[in-house]
Amino acid sequence: MKIGRFRAGRRAAYGVIKDDEIIEVKGSIYTRFRMTDTVHKLAEVKLLPPTEPYELWCPGLNFLDHLEYAGSVLGTETPQVPKHPQPWRKGRNALTGLGDPIIIPKDSDGEVHYEGEAVAVIGKECRRVTPERASKFILGYTCGNDVSERSWQGEDWTFWRAKGSDSFAPVGPWIETELDPQNLDMIVRINGEEVQNCNTRDMLFSFAEIISYISQQVTLRPGDLVFSGATGVTRALKLEDVVEVDIPSIGVLYNPVAVEFDSSAPLVL
Amino acid sequence: MKIGRFRAGRRAAYGVIKDDEIIEVKGSIYTRFRMTDTVHKLAEVKLLPPTEPYELWCPGLNFLDHLEYAGSVLGTETPQVPKHPQPWRKGRNALTGLGDPIIIPKDSDGEVHYEGEAVAVIGKECRRVTPERASKFILGYTCGNDVSERSWQGEDWTFWRAKGSDSFAPVGPWIETELDPQNLDMIVRINGEEVQNCNTRDMLFSFAEIISYISQQVTLRPGDLVFSGATGVTRALKLEDVVEVDIPSIGVLYNPVAVEFDSSAPLVL
Repeated sequence: MKIGRFRAGRRAAYGVIKDDEIIEVKGSIYTRFRMTDTVHKLAEVKLLPPTEPYELWCPGLNFLDHLEYAGSVLGTETPQVPKHPQPWRKGRNALTGLGDPIIIPKDSDGEVHYEGEAVAVIGKECRRVTPERASKFILGYTCGNDVSERSWQGEDWTFWRAKGSDSFAPVGPWIETELDPQNLDMIVRINGEEVQNCNTRDMLFSFAEIISYISQQVTLRPGDLVFSGATGVTRALKLEDVVEVDIPSIGVLYNPVAVEFDSSAPLVL
Repeated sequence: MKIGRFRAGRRAAYGVIKDDEIIEVKGSIYTRFRMTDTVHKLAEVKLLPPTEPYELWCPGLNFLDHLEYAGSVLGTETPQVPKHPQPWRKGRNALTGLGDPIIIPKDSDGEVHYEGEAVAVIGKECRRVTPERASKFILGYTCGNDVSERSWQGEDWTFWRAKGSDSFAPVGPWIETELDPQNLDMIVRINGEEVQNCNTRDMLFSFAEIISYISQQVTLRPGDLVFSGATGVTRALKLEDVVEVDIPSIGVLYNPVAVEFDSSAPLVL
């Protein structure tokens, strides 16, 4: 089943997607809901990020083919293969939806890159869950883009702006509840050209293992988002590019690229 | 004026504190509100964390007398005096209120420390605000405890659990809207013994400068919390301690210390 959040007129609601329509639901997508008689054409609503998360989580290095590149971005040697996830919080402020622009900050030197990823959606509150039981706490999966400013990633002590600037977390288009999370193709296209093609089977730590690990110290809540981690070597986005994160068994998350209008006062500290 | 959030029976509401009473308000504390006729004795309500923030921010190293100690915790040389804030996100999950226990995780080796800090409360959405204008976007100030597990702080790549485990962000008791934020004594007591006594005048970056800096890439929202940063050298908390963060022109945030019950399954990855 595909579950999405949308705005029709001034109202936001959840719905179930069937073909080119979205059927509004009543109740909570995390506990119990029923379909209503209100049906919209998908083309006539604005799809929103599919949840309102407390937090967005990423696992640290989670694909072997990203290690060497990560070292070069951070200005370090190639990191060792991690023995456990190294979780970090992506900005709640950065969350944005299908079709919304990724905005290159005016004080970036232009190295703003895509990272096309699968994203698990927490369905039930969980704390100290084992990897074996973690999947029971996942509602489904969606597509995400861990947009990253490579210069800031190397300069700063944390990823607060490198991966947490406004608009740096596109997520959508909806949640697919039935699929095998460790066998998902994750394809990225820029203006139709394929620039990434990998599979979640190569994750060093599965979604269940990442969620178990985080949940040892942190209560995860319904709607929280857990990214798969990035693969391979990426390249910079530029004005008017369109980035697509295509996970065929989920759908396509597309976002145009914009550049921040350069008029406001310079930063003076 | 002192503004607090509280629960009376099953209902949560905001109120204005006068002496030993809290006067319930109607409207939004961020835009416009009026006092109602509903008045509670403070002793008869449960004070909650004073806002429901999108995010909790800390500035990185912000006091000279914490640099050497921070280096020893991280296992590095004494860091250089920072030229700008190095912001990071403290966990939303970690937020807890007056009187709630700080819980030492069962898999911590016991080095869970207090850091008594002043905390700015954002009052209006802001983005790319200058330091000169930043104070217009601050509603007031409260007390916070940036609870920190020193071993994890040294071991991990990020502060996700060292400073983001459940219960590691006590904030309260309420928001004081009228004070000089750069002249606040920040006193910590453990079981009545003073273990910290410093002043926000020694912050390397003022609240206005930190908020300006973060707002260059991040939209701050009403209710978001911005900590002052830690001072000095701290020490470990232990079971049944009571920690007080006392900022005399605001109030006292007190929290007892508990230890997580050690029964659930061990982490297996």
